[in-house]
Amino acid sequence: MFASHMILPDLRNQSIFDRLSPTLLSDLGLIHKGAAGRFSLLPLGTLIFERMKKIHRRNMLAAGAIEATFLSLAPADTWRESGRWDSFGPALIKTKLHGDQAACLNPTHEEAAVTIMRDWLTSYRDLPKNLFCIQKVYRDEPRPKSQLLRTHEFVMADSYSFHQDSSDADTCYQKMQDVFSTTFAAYGLPCQIIHADNGLIGGSRSVEFQLPHELGESRFVACSCGYAADVSVLRKEGICNECGEEIEAIKGIELGHIFHLETTYSAKMSLRVRGQNNKMQHPVMGCTGIGMTRSLQSIVMSHLKESGVAWPKAVAPFDVVIQSDSNEKSQMIGIEANLAAKGVSVLADDRDVSKAAQNALTDFTSPPIVLKQVGAHWDAVAKGNSVETGISAEAVLPYVDAILLAGQKSQQKQTFAERLEPFDGAAE
Amino acid sequence: MFASHMILPDLRNQSIFDRLSPTLLSDLGLIHKGAAGRFSLLPLGTLIFERMKKIHRRNMLAAGAIEATFLSLAPADTWRESGRWDSFGPALIKTKLHGDQAACLNPTHEEAAVTIMRDWLTSYRDLPKNLFCIQKVYRDEPRPKSQLLRTHEFVMADSYSFHQDSSDADTCYQKMQDVFSTTFAAYGLPCQIIHADNGLIGGSRSVEFQLPHELGESRFVACSCGYAADVSVLRKEGICNECGEEIEAIKGIELGHIFHLETTYSAKMSLRVRGQNNKMQHPVMGCTGIGMTRSLQSIVMSHLKESGVAWPKAVAPFDVVIQSDSNEKSQMIGIEANLAAKGVSVLADDRDVSKAAQNALTDFTSPPIVLKQVGAHWDAVAKGNSVETGISAEAVLPYVDAILLAGQKSQQKQTFAERLEPFDGAAE
Repeated sequence: MFASHMILPDLRNQSIFDRLSPTLLSDLGLIHKGAAGRFSLLPLGTLIFERMKKIHRRNMLAAGAIEATFLSLAPADTWRESGRWDSFGPALIKTKLHGDQAACLNPTHEEAAVTIMRDWLTSYRDLPKNLFCIQKVYRDEPRPKSQLLRTHEFVMADSYSFHQDSSDADTCYQKMQDVFSTTFAAYGLPCQIIHADNGLIGGSRSVEFQLPHELGESRFVACSCGYAADVSVLRKEGICNECGEEIEAIKGIELGHIFHLETTYSAKMSLRVRGQNNKMQHPVMGCTGIGMTRSLQSIVMSHLKESGVAWPKAVAPFDVVIQSDSNEKSQMIGIEANLAAKGVSVLADDRDVSKAAQNALTDFTSPPIVLKQVGAHWDAVAKGNSVETGISAEAVLPYVDAILLAGQKSQQKQTFAERLEPFDGAAE
Repeated sequence: MFASHMILPDLRNQSIFDRLSPTLLSDLGLIHKGAAGRFSLLPLGTLIFERMKKIHRRNMLAAGAIEATFLSLAPADTWRESGRWDSFGPALIKTKLHGDQAACLNPTHEEAAVTIMRDWLTSYRDLPKNLFCIQKVYRDEPRPKSQLLRTHEFVMADSYSFHQDSSDADTCYQKMQDVFSTTFAAYGLPCQIIHADNGLIGGSRSVEFQLPHELGESRFVACSCGYAADVSVLRKEGICNECGEEIEAIKGIELGHIFHLETTYSAKMSLRVRGQNNKMQHPVMGCTGIGMTRSLQSIVMSHLKESGVAWPKAVAPFDVVIQSDSNEKSQMIGIEANLAAKGVSVLADDRDVSKAAQNALTDFTSPPIVLKQVGAHWDAVAKGNSVETGISAEAVLPYVDAILLAGQKSQQKQTFAERLEPFDGAAE
């Protein structure tokens, strides 16, 4: 990718970005506001977002989940079956198709997932199954605010699991906590796992992944004894449920939520499978959700520096930024083409600007590797590594390969370790 | 991925799939119908679809386009500015947010793209720019039909380009035709490029990518002289515009459309940049769209065999299918983990079923590589290659690497050749 093709903020005035600005993500060129609570992701935001999706997708697949793409315009009937057509409240966006077919824009996918499973599950032998998606959902929020934190449309990564019994659902409930921890670690977001209320989703219990942050709208308590809970589930305001100590509430951004649903939806929506005892039974369900657009904003706020964002390596928009000598761009074009063809995310700064302007853009995007043309040779700077100077054009590609391969290998090791415990033991 | 985690059709009765069945994609386990014209993609469909997206994304990026994610709930104001709030007709799904804010579900993104560019383009020096997205759009089709061919919600890959003058827009118009040809070639869809009407989109001229097919709802003519056009743009029904020969209309599925928009939207929506002559001017625009879900169905219909789909290699759901010896699955689990960690799409058949049932599933998914455990060793079958027998467990991974690497290398060569002509010459 060439810088001249991109949409990038003007950094000529040595911009200093304000951490709490209500237009921070727009100022950084990540999003564009179309209306209150409705945003587009700009190309820079989309590059980062695609990396975030890829990371979470890999983690979910490694845990035995399978990806679907749910319909968005749900028929009213399925929401009436679950009882949520009325109980979900005014946040449910309703419309009519072709004049008289009542429909709503899915704000979450319990109804969609159960409807599918009614057609696909027949026996306990088909269980467990864990269906996830990463897609846009819609809510008519009364007061959208704080950029991507509370909006009318946002991307959620949600999953719906189906089990023979509560014990198997518990295994999945734990497994999903591991997956979320792995995903948020890659996003560079130190979330706290807290006990929470099930709210509009229903079921028996849930945990939230909360990022402590002053812009957060959730309030939770974390006791020194290790217990942490949403303030709404505290028995007595200010006193720890577990040890009785006095504790103070902290503001947090709710980034993830994992629910134990029991048979709330499978019973209401008549999802049944033949059990081991040959009797028909309702599968026990679980569900999870990560606010992906909200996580994007959290990454930005958590890793902001004066001159841009110090992106965690795994979600940096570019693996490599190339600064060329402005009089001789052919080497840069060749290197860009080769890296892009290998699937490396690369930004080649082809603008006719000063070295200072090139440095400002590089600093703004925080790439793991920077290549700088110096006459007929190249200098390379790998984040956290020493600088290497005087590399020939031919040696640049092997150099980048080696650095990126080393990074991938350490990632693969982690993935392999995760995979040693398969999702449900079915693969033994 | 393990077969026991997946949703897969029951192939025990040696299913024979009917090419023209109105439930073909559901029968294959690719999609699930939630209501007339509204479908979810099941996991198998999603795997294929993600590959389709990746291919087109790579081709668009290589052509200098940049990816955005547009808002879906558009404010009515922007659609009033373009004049399409009324002129688009009843297919535009309108709703109200928080009681009184009129909005519509974007059926296409001209308004969204222009609104963004109003905030980002200031000078002719910022041009050209080409913004694309791959996301769901919404239309209240009066009569949804033919599975994914005419629906209320579908995924479109669309782009919006902005140019200094018509000549630069022409260059992009040609470049996009090349990109579409490359994408449809990878999808295994032999489309015909035809001259078409601009319809609801507006502008001066357009070309469609039509797949000749009896289920298609478009009608076009292709003369032996080379001229091909939508019947609606023919001067005289049945007579070639170019050579005067008599020609017959063919049914086709419209899979892609490329438009020369001139200043239709930039003028109506007051998008201006400072020109070389220092005067404010409206950028000339182009736009393109591929019906992605419709293309998925076209791939299925074009490559159906009795026992499944002979997927073109680039969009096969799995690169590798592993058949294990049912008494000893540990080797399979290790191979699956290693391949998955490398990003190879792999299906490990861990079901306790007969060899015949394993073969039926393998045949159904048409993978480029099949690995079969035979005692302590493995046999491998690579599509279009000879069978290799008696491979040790340790040698399986290098074998798969070599086959896949050879495939990637030939792909990279193509990408590199494409990239030798940069999008706009800015990178010289």
